[in-house]
This record gives sequence, C-alpha cells and structure tokens, in this order.
Amino acid sequence: MDTILHALPSAGGGCKARKLFRSRSQQAEPTFSPKGCLVRMAVGWFYLSVLALCSLGSMCILFTIYWMRYWHGGFAWDGSMLMFNWHPVLMVTGMVVLYSAASLVYRLPQSWVGPRLPWKSGHAAMHLLAFLLTVLGLHAVFEFHNHAKIPHLYSLHSWLGITTVFLFACQWFLGFSVFLLPWASMWLRSLLKPIHVFFGASILSLAIASVVSGINEKLFFSLKNGTKTYSNLPSEAVFANCAGMLVVVFGLLVLYILLASSWKRPEPGMQAEREPTRTRGRAGTPEVMLEGERGLAEPLLQKRS
Amino acid sequence: MDTILHALPSAGGGCKARKLFRSRSQQAEPTFSPKGCLVRMAVGWFYLSVLALCSLGSMCILFTIYWMRYWHGGFAWDGSMLMFNWHPVLMVTGMVVLYSAASLVYRLPQSWVGPRLPWKSGHAAMHLLAFLLTVLGLHAVFEFHNHAKIPHLYSLHSWLGITTVFLFACQWFLGFSVFLLPWASMWLRSLLKPIHVFFGASILSLAIASVVSGINEKLFFSLKNGTKTYSNLPSEAVFANCAGMLVVVFGLLVLYILLASSWKRPEPGMQAEREPTRTRGRAGTPEVMLEGERGLAEPLLQKRS
Repeated sequence: MDTILHALPSAGGGCKARKLFRSRSQQAEPTFSPKGCLVRMAVGWFYLSVLALCSLGSMCILFTIYWMRYWHGGFAWDGSMLMFNWHPVLMVTGMVVLYSAASLVYRLPQSWVGPRLPWKSGHAAMHLLAFLLTVLGLHAVFEFHNHAKIPHLYSLHSWLGITTVFLFACQWFLGFSVFLLPWASMWLRSLLKPIHVFFGASILSLAIASVVSGINEKLFFSLKNGTKTYSNLPSEAVFANCAGMLVVVFGLLVLYILLASSWKRPEPGMQAEREPTRTRGRAGTPEVMLEGERGLAEPLLQKRS
Repeated sequence: MDTILHALPSAGGGCKARKLFRSRSQQAEPTFSPKGCLVRMAVGWFYLSVLALCSLGSMCILFTIYWMRYWHGGFAWDGSMLMFNWHPVLMVTGMVVLYSAASLVYRLPQSWVGPRLPWKSGHAAMHLLAFLLTVLGLHAVFEFHNHAKIPHLYSLHSWLGITTVFLFACQWFLGFSVFLLPWASMWLRSLLKPIHVFFGASILSLAIASVVSGINEKLFFSLKNGTKTYSNLPSEAVFANCAGMLVVVFGLLVLYILLASSWKRPEPGMQAEREPTRTRGRAGTPEVMLEGERGLAEPLLQKRS
C-alpha cells in the first residue's frame, strides 16, 4: 500500500488523501492480499494511463510545432504566412490537449476527497485558458486571411471549427453559471450535468474532426507543386498524417477515460458506499483502502467477487 | 394510454409489448394522472426523436446523392469518375446512417420485452449490411484510383477512413463471437460490453470525422478552376458544406441517444425494478405502465418525486 501512497501526487487533494490514508494505516498495518493486489493493479493501471495521456498530448503539440517550424519556416505575429503557422499549434494545444486535461480533472482520485469547489474552479480555469488559446489560434488565421485577402470561413473545416468554438463558449458560460456560481439548485445541476458531460465529450470529438480536416486541407494547399505532391507522400505528408492520427488516438483515450472508465468521482449518494472500507487480508489482518483507490479498483473487485 | 399503445410499432417485440399491455389494461382501466401525463410526454419525446433521426438520416443520404448527381454527373460502375461518385453516397449510407440505425436497435422500448436473441441478430445483421455498403464504397474509390492511376491511401482522410473501417470489422467480429455465439460466459460479456459500446460510439465519431475531411477534400479538388473556387463559396460549396454539417448534427444526436439518454435496455439485475408497475392515478385508480414506457419516463418521474 505504501507504493500507492507514494504514487499519489502531493498537491491539493492529494495531501488530504495522504493524511486520511496515514491516520488509517496507523490503526491497521496493511498486509498482502489478493484484493490488495487488485487495488495495486488498478492504481498502477490508472497512473500508467495518465502517463500515456501526458506523453501523447505532449507529442501532439510537439509534432505540430515541428511540422510548422521544419516545413513552413516557423512563427511570427505579423499577418504573414508565419502567423498562420500559430493556428494549428494553438488549436491543437488549446482545443484538444488543454481542453482534454481540463475535462479529466474529476477523474483524478485526489478530486474525490474533500470539498468540490477548488476542483471546480481548477476545471473552469483550465477550460478558460484552453478557450483563450483557441481564440488566439482563430485570431492568427483571421489576421493571415485579412493580409492575404483570402475570404474567411468558406471551407467545411472552418464551418465545423467555428461551430465547435461557439459550442465551447456556450458550454463554458453554462458550466460557469450553473455549476460554479452558487445560485443554481441541486435539481437544476443534476438535470444539466449529463448534458454538460455529453457536450464536453462532443466538443472534443468535433475539435478532433476539425483538426483532421484542417491538417488534410493544409497538406493539399502546401503539397501541390512539382514532385512534392500530397499523393506522392513526401516526408512532410507522412509526418503531418502521423500528427493527425496521434491527435485521434489521444482524443479516443481521453473520451474512453471520460465516458467509459470507472474513474468517476462518486455522486453524493454513492459516497457512503465508496467510503474507505476494511477487507480481510490473506492472514485475516484488516486492510484499509482509500476511497479513491477503491473506486479505481471497483470493477476488478466486482469481477472477482 | 391508448395513444402510447398505438404509438408502439406492430412488428417484433412491439406485438408482445402490445399483448402484455392489453392483458394488463383489461385488469385495470387506466385514467389520467400527473404521472401518466409524464409517461405520455416521455414516450412522445422518444418518438419525436426517432422521427427527427429518421428525417436527418434520410436527408444526409439524399443530400449526398443530389450533390453527386447535380454537380458531378451521376453514377456508374465502370472505374470512371462517375464510379467515384458512389464513394461518398455509400460511405454516408453505410458507415453513418445504417451504422447508427443498427447501433440504436437496443434503444427501442420494444427490444426490452422478451428474448434478446432476435434483437441481437437484427443488430448484427444491420451492422453487417452497413459493413457491406462500406466495403462497396471503398471498392468504388479504389477502382477509380486504379483506372486514373492515382495512388491509394495517401491523405489523412484515407488513413483515418481505412482505420475506421478496420476498427468496424474488428468490432463486428468481436461482437459476433462474444455476444451472439453462445460460448462466451456472462462474466466475459459483462467485461467486454462497455468496451463494445464505447468502440461502437468511437467508430461512429471517426466515421463522421472521415466524412467531414472527405467532403472538404472533394470540394478542394473539384472547385479550383476559374471563378468557381471553393473560397468564393459557389452553390455547390454551400450545399456540400451543409451536407457535412447535417452529418455532424445527425451523428451528435445518435451519440446522445446512445450514450447519454436514459433509453437503455435495463440490465438483467435491473429488470425487476423496471417491471410494469402500478401507480395510483388521480382518483386513486391503479394505472398500469409498460416496462419500456416506464424506462423512458424514469428520469422525469425521478425529477418529480
């Protein structure tokens, strides 16, 4: 169990989780048991997934930056083609990676312990930052279009992209008004929560569709001359296609954790069920599980029992 | 209640549902009550959504056919450009509309009554038909590429599309082997079901992303000469962009019903809870609710109680 304890990050709710765990582990020293082993597996699997997500998210951003630097001359903020290069980088960073990180805040077991408000504020603040990056990304492409006298918003990519950003703005304001400000009743919150979660996942799906169509469009624009056509699959095309597929894999992993995993903060009614419980270890010694850890391991435990 | 009774389709499980309902309504004639009114509202809302889905799905197909007929000369099966025109039509019909219809089979309340096998077989058969149309759609574009000496699978659209079809094939074989053939244990089925549902929804999301990037790509190919460039938004561009947005709206509605609505077939453990129940009507008369109808109305009833 010490492994799990040390695996818990030290910030925020993690501290409380550690204290809660320590006070309990002083009462009863845990020993090895099949159930304990399953909990360790589940917690290990969870942190492995977090590591995979962080790596994939970083790779998505780095691949986009490298694509724009190596094949398109880097970045500037002057209305030129180099300003356009900020567009894919900021959209992938804001609308995909940071948006996903903000959406997954409640899947951290540390967020299940203690008051909700700091986690809600973090969720809203991260989404706001994602939104600001997205707006900067839009500004970059609009400014480039203005300088190059290219019409705005004509392609299906742009129609879908602007719809996604509009839905994101609505979602943020609805979330802020209903779930963060104190006026809304529990009834209204419980009515809107499934819709909020569904639209959160939908906006990410639409963002991924926009990124895919955007990369495709950019490659048809830039790879159309001489031997370097898209259909000949030069190195840029392979690299950018891989970047697009990485974004898709990242998005699917995020959606899985968001919608299908059991890593969800328990609802108030379920809190009692998920309270730290004692199970009998191999030698009959009581073994203590932290609420979050039990939540992570629940599906495995149910399958075994 | 007669309205609900007549609203139930007469085929398959609907017949059983009617008989079950009739035998119960002979025992106790239902009267008006606030709960009955909520059930009627929920059932009405359900059938309104089914109607909206059918209309949207048909519009997606008809828009794609019209686009290919009116602006691209119609259809043929001879390796020419007219053979390519089958590609968008068959992909939208197979991978989006029929795939969605097959996925939503278990959301029909009629499927909640009686044995599961006929519904499972229908679900698998509809998916198989969707898969066959998809393969025909792929064949159309590969054959066109062969005749026009265009390389296969170079764009991000094609990479994502072929990955989606591969995942669809895996999903179908896994579903057929585990959920339709009788060898798999309940343990294995309950372990794989959430993954099956998640990948079902993911494949639809990837199909929509592929369709959007495909329409975008096609418009950049066909609208690049003279005054009829994509950026000038000629009528074809507006029409095809609208077709793409229709596919997105249709997909979101399907995903909502699939993932976030309460219109799910109750699990065996929950069956008892959702069995037809008697509630007291306005005048104290017992009112009978059909299992499926109660399921549809449950969220409303919970909110009121």
